[in-house]
Amino acid sequence: MAPSALAARFGESVTKSALRSYLAEFISTFFFVIAAVGSAMSSRKMLPDAMEEPAALVVVAVANAFALSSAIYIAGNISGGHVNPAVTFAMAIGGRISVPTAIFYWISQMLASIMACILLKGTTAGQAVPSFAISQEMTGFGSSILEGVLTFALVYTVYATGDPRNSPLGATGPIMVGFVAGAGVLATGPLTGGSMNPACAFGSALVAGSFRNQAVYWIGPLVGAMAAGLLYDNAMIASQAQDLPPPAVIRGFSEGVRA
Amino acid sequence: MAPSALAARFGESVTKSALRSYLAEFISTFFFVIAAVGSAMSSRKMLPDAMEEPAALVVVAVANAFALSSAIYIAGNISGGHVNPAVTFAMAIGGRISVPTAIFYWISQMLASIMACILLKGTTAGQAVPSFAISQEMTGFGSSILEGVLTFALVYTVYATGDPRNSPLGATGPIMVGFVAGAGVLATGPLTGGSMNPACAFGSALVAGSFRNQAVYWIGPLVGAMAAGLLYDNAMIASQAQDLPPPAVIRGFSEGVRA
Amino acid sequence: MAPSALAARFGESVTKSALRSYLAEFISTFFFVIAAVGSAMSSRKMLPDAMEEPAALVVVAVANAFALSSAIYIAGNISGGHVNPAVTFAMAIGGRISVPTAIFYWISQMLASIMACILLKGTTAGQAVPSFAISQEMTGFGSSILEGVLTFALVYTVYATGDPRNSPLGATGPIMVGFVAGAGVLATGPLTGGSMNPACAFGSALVAGSFRNQAVYWIGPLVGAMAAGLLYDNAMIASQAQDLPPPAVIRGFSEGVRA
Amino acid sequence: MAPSALAARFGESVTKSALRSYLAEFISTFFFVIAAVGSAMSSRKMLPDAMEEPAALVVVAVANAFALSSAIYIAGNISGGHVNPAVTFAMAIGGRISVPTAIFYWISQMLASIMACILLKGTTAGQAVPSFAISQEMTGFGSSILEGVLTFALVYTVYATGDPRNSPLGATGPIMVGFVAGAGVLATGPLTGGSMNPACAFGSALVAGSFRNQAVYWIGPLVGAMAAGLLYDNAMIASQAQDLPPPAVIRGFSEGVRA
Repeated sequence: MAPSALAARFGESVTKSALRSYLAEFISTFFFVIAAVGSAMSSRKMLPDAMEEPAALVVVAVANAFALSSAIYIAGNISGGHVNPAVTFAMAIGGRISVPTAIFYWISQMLASIMACILLKGTTAGQAVPSFAISQEMTGFGSSILEGVLTFALVYTVYATGDPRNSPLGATGPIMVGFVAGAGVLATGPLTGGSMNPACAFGSALVAGSFRNQAVYWIGPLVGAMAAGLLYDNAMIASQAQDLPPPAVIRGFSEGVRA
Repeated sequence: MAPSALAARFGESVTKSALRSYLAEFISTFFFVIAAVGSAMSSRKMLPDAMEEPAALVVVAVANAFALSSAIYIAGNISGGHVNPAVTFAMAIGGRISVPTAIFYWISQMLASIMACILLKGTTAGQAVPSFAISQEMTGFGSSILEGVLTFALVYTVYATGDPRNSPLGATGPIMVGFVAGAGVLATGPLTGGSMNPACAFGSALVAGSFRNQAVYWIGPLVGAMAAGLLYDNAMIASQAQDLPPPAVIRGFSEGVRA
Repeated sequence: MAPSALAARFGESVTKSALRSYLAEFISTFFFVIAAVGSAMSSRKMLPDAMEEPAALVVVAVANAFALSSAIYIAGNISGGHVNPAVTFAMAIGGRISVPTAIFYWISQMLASIMACILLKGTTAGQAVPSFAISQEMTGFGSSILEGVLTFALVYTVYATGDPRNSPLGATGPIMVGFVAGAGVLATGPLTGGSMNPACAFGSALVAGSFRNQAVYWIGPLVGAMAAGLLYDNAMIASQAQDLPPPAVIRGFSEGVRA
Repeated sequence: MAPSALAARFGESVTKSALRSYLAEFISTFFFVIAAVGSAMSSRKMLPDAMEEPAALVVVAVANAFALSSAIYIAGNISGGHVNPAVTFAMAIGGRISVPTAIFYWISQMLASIMACILLKGTTAGQAVPSFAISQEMTGFGSSILEGVLTFALVYTVYATGDPRNSPLGATGPIMVGFVAGAGVLATGPLTGGSMNPACAFGSALVAGSFRNQAVYWIGPLVGAMAAGLLYDNAMIASQAQDLPPPAVIRGFSEGVRA
């Protein structure tokens, strides 16, 4: 790509509408991390042995489901409602958003996660921010696969919510993605931590000061997200491409709603 | 404003339709407080040490989510479904409702909360009504910030549900606001009490006879609500103002549905 | 009413379409009672002291919310989705359904509840069917009021879901009524039992062989339901009556959806 | 049927669109089983005595509800979103899908379940995969009836979501089926295991190496599913057949949405 084309693309990434998108991603990710990490802190505040108590798993899983649903909803018509670097990664790979835009989305999401964890640490006076961790018996490889499979399901669902064929169902799209996140935490919380979101894992690790197993929360989710995006774009919607808007403009569930 | 203009505005606040709005706010807030405070009482009835049990947090959080969703739903097309003085405050600051109307909304909400707590105390024969309280390690300042951040998310979501761009998603608006409340309780219940609603905090404090930390449940939420409303009105919907109905008529999620 | 008019009205109650309605009420109430009473049995199977465990309250409340939502959904377009004698009572009082039809609805609901409890007892080999009971400290009067207030909220929500103004929100109507039931159980389960449904209370009492406090589960809910119906019909939708279909044809949330 | 007609029917089962359906069933069932079985493994990882803890029942029930809702949603417009051999069986019996297609659906669902359980065993390093089991006091006959009744409710709800009369409610169809599954687990988890899905029961039994009571998870659900399908097709939608599309084309909730 010629430098001028690159500059033009970059220019598209700093319009007023684009800046609004980054702000929307920031706000949604900030709220989601407050809920996801805050609920784990609340569980431990109640019961230091929270990791041996299924009720604490319900606390964290329901917080993830509720918060991700609403975080996607409020950003949906502004930024597409990614709230997750893995979703943005898949959409950039598949050409649904440009690379410069994806980079600004990532920056917004990472900053939001870090600032949410700093806020939680600052306001709770010495309460430790928990970082995601895999359980003793698990290997890093097995954990990456599990995180990848769940992120596959999450990103696949995001794509399904943006599929124009699902138009009348679009209204429940954000709920569905939240449900996938909640089910994922319930299925793997005590095993891999149940993150499915590299921004959330990174922010809490940075503030907790422990990057142990951090690769698990990046490799699995990014590979799983890419696989989900490529599969959906190529196997699931390919044959109807002629009568649908070009997929490049579909960047979130809201497209399914509008179509 | 000249006295006659003020009188005219006040006149608009006591029409039959306006009175119906206040009644709707009363009924919805009453039911919400019964669920939010009643669920905390039920937890303590089962287990006096409920504050050390994550399952009790699930009880209260799910009660908040379910009850707020339906409370907003049933009032939606009548009063806009505020059910929270912080929401009303943001809408008054932003000019979406008039100040006299906001005052009547507040009166309805506060009365409903107080009467709900009195009913709970009266019918349960000596069961103590719990008031919201911050945990020992928390400072009032940190708690205010946390309550403010969560109320920001709540009010921002209320505004998103009333955004005409979200029209096809409007049907799930009340669920989304309920989800934010549920996630907020899960994230901060054992830390700040997880109120996000000054009426609920005030009513239970009055009936419990303890106004300790009451300022936390007013300052944070009102500032957070105002910030959310101003940000949404100015940064998120500003540029499309010419082709949208004037924001002053949008007072709840139902506008998003109708548009 | 002349005998011939009565006969005509009765005739309308035994058409093929009417019989389908009774079958729909039977199926929905049967499934709801299996879930509501079965979840209480499951909790006690796991933990005999389930009444001291907030997690057991979550089990029963979520079962109520999920099952009532879907029970109303599946009957919605056939019978209106009452699934509760209190709802039917309010609609008969308000003239939304005829008295003979209401009687057949009640018979269907009561039979379904009794048969569901018999099935639970029969298939679980000696597991006791729990009947609803108020806690020791509660008075029958206070319990009736609490059950009545919650049933008021439930029936008021049913009416709101059938309000044509809520048309675009109609899709989530059954979820909303389920949420009210779930919140009601969380708020009052350990205090009054959290029934809000005379059929469910009667069926389990009959099979358990204990009618202690049974009046609580009839008087409060029926009075609360009647009050909700009369208030909604007269104060909430009265002034727009001229441009709306006559309320007599609105017998469930599905009318709101169609309008 | 003449061999050539059979071949033609088989031919319809291997078109590109049909293959996409099988892939969609595979992906959805895979994710559902990861959530349903994984959540049981997570509970036991936290607490070996999970079967005596109501919170563990909430973990599994909510995972079932969330995962089934989203699994149906993402496959809805592609395969009809069965995700369950019992649903496919009912639709084949009722002529809504052809027998060859049903067989391919079954193969996809069974393979997905087996592979999901293998993945869970492989990645969790020796963690035992739990198989569904009935409790000691239960008889196989009683358990079959309970599983059958709940599967009846599940399949009946699937049919209701595909009923064109429910069109405006179609958007919430997948949520409703998920709610029925969640309520079913809450009602019978500690009694029969709460499967309602032969693929899920078979896959976990195969990987766990225990087929004890396996018949319970096939006989009850298949009979219940068939009864639900026949009842719905004949008693619930019969009289309006003339103005509706022939039921043979309705193979999932998405038809209700489109109509």
